[in-house]
Amino acid sequence: MNRRQFNKRLTQGLAGTALVSSVPLACAMGGDGGKKGSLGIALVGLGSYSTYQLAPALQETVNCHLAGIVTGTKEKEKIWAEKYGIPEKNIYNYDNFDTIRDNQDIDIVYVVLPNSMHAEFSIRAARAGKHVICEKPMALSVEECDAIIKACTDAGVKLAVGYRLHSEPYTQEVKRFVKEKTFGEVLYVSAEAAYRSVGNPDQWRLNRELSGGGALMNMGVYSIQSAIYSTGQNPVAVTAQEFSTRPDYFRDTDETITAQFQFPGGAVGNIFTSHNANANSLYASCTRGWFSLKPANNYGPLAGESANGILTFPHQSQQKLQMDDFASHILYRTENRAPGEMGKRDLIIVEAIYRSIAEGNKSISLDLGNMGLV
Amino acid sequence: MNRRQFNKRLTQGLAGTALVSSVPLACAMGGDGGKKGSLGIALVGLGSYSTYQLAPALQETVNCHLAGIVTGTKEKEKIWAEKYGIPEKNIYNYDNFDTIRDNQDIDIVYVVLPNSMHAEFSIRAARAGKHVICEKPMALSVEECDAIIKACTDAGVKLAVGYRLHSEPYTQEVKRFVKEKTFGEVLYVSAEAAYRSVGNPDQWRLNRELSGGGALMNMGVYSIQSAIYSTGQNPVAVTAQEFSTRPDYFRDTDETITAQFQFPGGAVGNIFTSHNANANSLYASCTRGWFSLKPANNYGPLAGESANGILTFPHQSQQKLQMDDFASHILYRTENRAPGEMGKRDLIIVEAIYRSIAEGNKSISLDLGNMGLV
Repeated sequence: MNRRQFNKRLTQGLAGTALVSSVPLACAMGGDGGKKGSLGIALVGLGSYSTYQLAPALQETVNCHLAGIVTGTKEKEKIWAEKYGIPEKNIYNYDNFDTIRDNQDIDIVYVVLPNSMHAEFSIRAARAGKHVICEKPMALSVEECDAIIKACTDAGVKLAVGYRLHSEPYTQEVKRFVKEKTFGEVLYVSAEAAYRSVGNPDQWRLNRELSGGGALMNMGVYSIQSAIYSTGQNPVAVTAQEFSTRPDYFRDTDETITAQFQFPGGAVGNIFTSHNANANSLYASCTRGWFSLKPANNYGPLAGESANGILTFPHQSQQKLQMDDFASHILYRTENRAPGEMGKRDLIIVEAIYRSIAEGNKSISLDLGNMGLV
Repeated sequence: MNRRQFNKRLTQGLAGTALVSSVPLACAMGGDGGKKGSLGIALVGLGSYSTYQLAPALQETVNCHLAGIVTGTKEKEKIWAEKYGIPEKNIYNYDNFDTIRDNQDIDIVYVVLPNSMHAEFSIRAARAGKHVICEKPMALSVEECDAIIKACTDAGVKLAVGYRLHSEPYTQEVKRFVKEKTFGEVLYVSAEAAYRSVGNPDQWRLNRELSGGGALMNMGVYSIQSAIYSTGQNPVAVTAQEFSTRPDYFRDTDETITAQFQFPGGAVGNIFTSHNANANSLYASCTRGWFSLKPANNYGPLAGESANGILTFPHQSQQKLQMDDFASHILYRTENRAPGEMGKRDLIIVEAIYRSIAEGNKSISLDLGNMGLV
């Protein structure tokens, strides 16, 4: 049985035993003799997000564990191997990455590289028969998103975008408010996602070739997400504006963008994203009340209120919840909370926002249907 | 000495004794033998704002008091006369209003009529030699604002717009943060001022002829104000968008408007106003911190926070503070916190927002200098 067949069986819920026997950690971490398992994850790209968020989170996960790494930096291999007990055979570089197909310890590849490398490594991972988590934004363009989705479909592997908030409890509560119409119909949503960047101007996020865009590609995607899960709808039209005040620092990426969404139910969305100011909030006004999160999209703990009072949920690592949910989707056929279609939809909106700006703040129509609504 | 000469002397700080002797209430309310006084105010228009806010506030004021009323509704005359002990001679209707010039009990006329009547009655009040408070928005157009300002200048009377928040302590604290650069330079300000209107669709606020516009003219003026006092600057450019979802209810006034301001220092302002959703907040991100008010512009008590902690000020009627400040300006030459130029500037911005919308969300340049900055 090759990985692809194995994964197919896994998806159908038939391969638990084989999996657990091939993943020793699973037993130590809650495997119960074949009914449950822990999938092995390989992190591709060992930058700060992998180092300070994902690897620590993978020490707490129950449905998956850190099994391998893929890095272009030789020195990191030994550090990570020692810190996390990763065997030599589960350590890859970008050149030999494709041989990961033969590694039964690795079930999921999590692509945590600069945006420009998301498509390439997600597609290579899929072709190696591995399930894929692709960090947000999913890719540089809608075209690349399509290529990732096709590669995963062709390979019969699962695909998720690294939208950790869909596993986060305050965000779940917001989605519940919307689904159950706790406060009636949503009339207005404000979504801010911004931080002030004053560090190294040569960081990849500020390099268009690597990032594909600035604030909008990085933080803006969160505000797009917020607006959508706060209304439960995809926008039907968008207008947008760009502001630049530090062109020497933001040499070729957008610094600040505002955008306005029209939703099919009549709600208005007001979006702010920036690499030049701090803002992190979500607020929705509804026909029978309101809800808000502030902060709404950092690593947490988030905080929130509604017309019914303060929201209180225990804090867990968002990344732990996210990766466990994706592993659960593979293992137990639970919902994929952030499928590839969601990432693609957000890139369609990103492209519409850039187009509105390029065309003098013109209104751009969107025909998204229910794409990516979960 | 006629009223005009009297007022001129008053402004020069010479007429305290004369004033107190003609305004008996002043003695009971803190007059100290001539150095202080209480000016008589006549409210023009006895709608809900006069009834539930201004008249009660005038029971608490120390520099002014309710001395007269001007109403087009005969039945209200007796009710108000009895409730507030207003003598027959201080009760006017719209026809005999101009004879108020001969009434020494009235120092200030507060115009609380529908927007379309602000200019006419402010000008008639000025020509009657009375100081003027004109409710916001100052008038239907910049042209009308100019006419009001000219009439007051010509008559040598003082003029303020009913911007109560300039006397409100949380708002004062925000202005102090900005002036003293407590948190450095302001980078971004979000200002929301909106409420959901579901009442009588025939109310004057939803009638363009009487209101001059919808959400923007009513609540939008607050968000414009917020953005300006949160940056301490006038915007140099604006873009705007309009949204309509209940055209049957909002038959001829704007329902929801978003606008984006560019400030000369580089700050970006993001404005939301609506008659179809509830939102009431101000947030500013600065180079060394942040501040916020929520609510930011209702009748209070307001509430606020900053990077230095929660803001806490005792609550007083905003209208009391506002009217006392204006009376103090007349009596003691203290600052006019909301001069006519401020109201005019806001109408220039309102007109630019409507123009941006009419011209397809186009960016409109503004050349306001320091107009109305207090």
